[in-house]
Amino acid sequence: MFTKKNILSMRDFSRSEIDLVLEGAEKLEKYALGKKSDLLQGKIMANLFFEPSTRTRLSFESAMKRLGGEVLNLGSQEASSISKGETLSDTVRVISNYCDVLVLRHPKEGAARMAAQFSSVPVINAGDGAGHHPTQTLLDLYTIKRESFLDGVSIALVGDLKYGRTVHSLAYALAMYDAKMFLVSPEQLKMPDDIKSDLKDLGAEVIESTSLNDVVKDLDVLYVTRIQRERFPDPEEYGKVADSYCVSLDLLNDVRKNLIIMHPLPRVNEIDVEVDKTPHAKYFKQAFYAVPVRMALLTLLLGD
Amino acid sequence: MFTKKNILSMRDFSRSEIDLVLEGAEKLEKYALGKKSDLLQGKIMANLFFEPSTRTRLSFESAMKRLGGEVLNLGSQEASSISKGETLSDTVRVISNYCDVLVLRHPKEGAARMAAQFSSVPVINAGDGAGHHPTQTLLDLYTIKRESFLDGVSIALVGDLKYGRTVHSLAYALAMYDAKMFLVSPEQLKMPDDIKSDLKDLGAEVIESTSLNDVVKDLDVLYVTRIQRERFPDPEEYGKVADSYCVSLDLLNDVRKNLIIMHPLPRVNEIDVEVDKTPHAKYFKQAFYAVPVRMALLTLLLGD
Amino acid sequence: MFTKKNILSMRDFSRSEIDLVLEGAEKLEKYALGKKSDLLQGKIMANLFFEPSTRTRLSFESAMKRLGGEVLNLGSQEASSISKGETLSDTVRVISNYCDVLVLRHPKEGAARMAAQFSSVPVINAGDGAGHHPTQTLLDLYTIKRESFLDGVSIALVGDLKYGRTVHSLAYALAMYDAKMFLVSPEQLKMPDDIKSDLKDLGAEVIESTSLNDVVKDLDVLYVTRIQRERFPDPEEYGKVADSYCVSLDLLNDVRKNLIIMHPLPRVNEIDVEVDKTPHAKYFKQAFYAVPVRMALLTLLLGD
Repeated sequence: MFTKKNILSMRDFSRSEIDLVLEGAEKLEKYALGKKSDLLQGKIMANLFFEPSTRTRLSFESAMKRLGGEVLNLGSQEASSISKGETLSDTVRVISNYCDVLVLRHPKEGAARMAAQFSSVPVINAGDGAGHHPTQTLLDLYTIKRESFLDGVSIALVGDLKYGRTVHSLAYALAMYDAKMFLVSPEQLKMPDDIKSDLKDLGAEVIESTSLNDVVKDLDVLYVTRIQRERFPDPEEYGKVADSYCVSLDLLNDVRKNLIIMHPLPRVNEIDVEVDKTPHAKYFKQAFYAVPVRMALLTLLLGD
Repeated sequence: MFTKKNILSMRDFSRSEIDLVLEGAEKLEKYALGKKSDLLQGKIMANLFFEPSTRTRLSFESAMKRLGGEVLNLGSQEASSISKGETLSDTVRVISNYCDVLVLRHPKEGAARMAAQFSSVPVINAGDGAGHHPTQTLLDLYTIKRESFLDGVSIALVGDLKYGRTVHSLAYALAMYDAKMFLVSPEQLKMPDDIKSDLKDLGAEVIESTSLNDVVKDLDVLYVTRIQRERFPDPEEYGKVADSYCVSLDLLNDVRKNLIIMHPLPRVNEIDVEVDKTPHAKYFKQAFYAVPVRMALLTLLLGD
Repeated sequence: MFTKKNILSMRDFSRSEIDLVLEGAEKLEKYALGKKSDLLQGKIMANLFFEPSTRTRLSFESAMKRLGGEVLNLGSQEASSISKGETLSDTVRVISNYCDVLVLRHPKEGAARMAAQFSSVPVINAGDGAGHHPTQTLLDLYTIKRESFLDGVSIALVGDLKYGRTVHSLAYALAMYDAKMFLVSPEQLKMPDDIKSDLKDLGAEVIESTSLNDVVKDLDVLYVTRIQRERFPDPEEYGKVADSYCVSLDLLNDVRKNLIIMHPLPRVNEIDVEVDKTPHAKYFKQAFYAVPVRMALLTLLLGD
């Protein structure tokens, strides 16, 4: 049974709770595709976004509306003007009077947990700074489940593994499914040692590499993330690294037939547009899966 | 019977019309709390906000959606771009084609009454500059009714009584309920003489004071408002005044057991957060009551 | 039968397809006026507006909501931040996952046709730069049909006929209805020769003039558009021209009894406010007709 009152961090999730969300998403997928539903009719979700995140907001809003619910939006401009005038705790106490569930995006780590203390309705963390973004991880897991498989999956996490919040959270979750993880990054952006050690403790097989080419043939899932220019003091150095992690048709010559390629989007140059046409490309499907997963969370929190 | 076509100013309201709104709110409160309703299904409310006012907008929007209606939002940025290109009267004539009721927030006094002349649908004034903000007054009255009592209530209005639009409007309405009013403000921000004289004419008992401490023991309702820093040329002077009107636990030692504390929010330092935990604190409840009161107005204007 | 998958340009429309839209609008008009409908219940429209266009957005949103559907809004600020991070084709591929129809406004000519290639749902062009804005033309035609008549109508197109996208598109469509067209503009803003020649080829009668006064008596429809100050290097020259095309009560002394005056709005000084009170003024009605016409397009694209 799902007993959570809020969705704050993947660290709060047991494997059986994750499974419950993923199974819920599977049942709701037909509504995400447009079948009429009144499951959440009369309910109101408030989007409280202190920084812009258009894809996250729109997929939450689509999820709620597909289920017959309504949405209040507090955009980043309004939110910033509100945050000049009062504390986050006061804002949350006021706005939770106007809705049944609150989706919070905030630049400060820990903001969601704090909001949950003051809100009279459930809070979903839609990203709090360098902190957590649990619904992204859940939709990543769902994509892997639907387009490949979870148990013992062979997956490469590629890109900035040092600062990338998304991949840390995903790696922890995958460890619960006995994944074989290839950690592919430039030397200066390697996964922190404490996380690697945690992953091994949880039972994952962890292999580090700086070369995508070396590992790509052994993968079921290739999970690509962005490497930010700002991480490199030298633009030339950045250019070299970015090129060497670009997924192109060439790279895919000898891969497994069922390899899937994922990306949290937006992409810059990490995946060549030529790759879009191959059956491996699942990043736009991944964007769609945001809807059933967020539907599942909303119904678990709000359903009777 | 409610015969108003627009909600423009509290000055247009008789006591029996106020009572009709408050009784309507009481009947609708269960829907504000989340019970499903289709009372306004198929109706559209347009928020036309020429300046930002997030709480007002969200509570109006929540009210409409809780009743099954839909909402169009024209934010302050869009509104300001529209107002460069055409007159308010043209904008109102166009937008009233797309909705069944128009909620207007505008920086200019008199804007709502002017809009009502050109609109083909009812107009609700959600604040027009130094002019009126009748729905705020109505929700204040409703809070007093629900959490204390209206007839002959002993209430202190605290803060900037010279420029504070909210308190002027509230004071006039309370006079109709034979309130005993303590007007508590610093010397330079006293209630204007003509308003005081009006209040007495209407039958209110009016007592002025510069000390909150002197009067707090005799109150059923303590209504606190913000004192704006800009009113004081000397920052030190402002600091002293702000401190002396801060509601803290100390102040509440000998108050009446059922005293309620209200504030239109946002607060800055006017009420210590320690006070939030006491049973006197009703300012967040007051924020909630915005919903049933605005529901009542919408149904009175739009209902069959 | 209506077989279009997207609404991109008036050039794609045959006369019988236009008629189908106009007949659809006529049937749906009662819902635009507030009668409840659940024709598009469960469907979601996404407004993807890369430049602000408040009237267009609000009338589309009203149309969708009047039919029981839901709307996602991506405002120009969000859109511009999204467009820094990714290509339009990626944005469209992501967002078409969250909706059933996509309404696009974009500053670049050709953007809508490109979007249609990548979208998994129908695309409606709500204006792409100097390109097309077909739904404006359709609502203009509908206004003429409802308030005057289409076949063989005698109409003057007044204003900037050189750069004005709206009038080019309308002129082509009117040619299909054997209109008698008076093209009234200052010398330097005349309709381009190639368009004039096309219109004649299509069967229209075309008469050019620089004087509104000379032709106004022979009109069923007077269609006024804005002349932009930026077109004139000399402000004095602009002032003279603008004055000479201003529609005032004086101009209307000897016009046909059933003459209707239209304007896409917003107006600046093109039509004197005194004219608003005459029965000739139909520009606000024209703004209303945006709703049934956009309803018709939405149902033709989304209906079963």
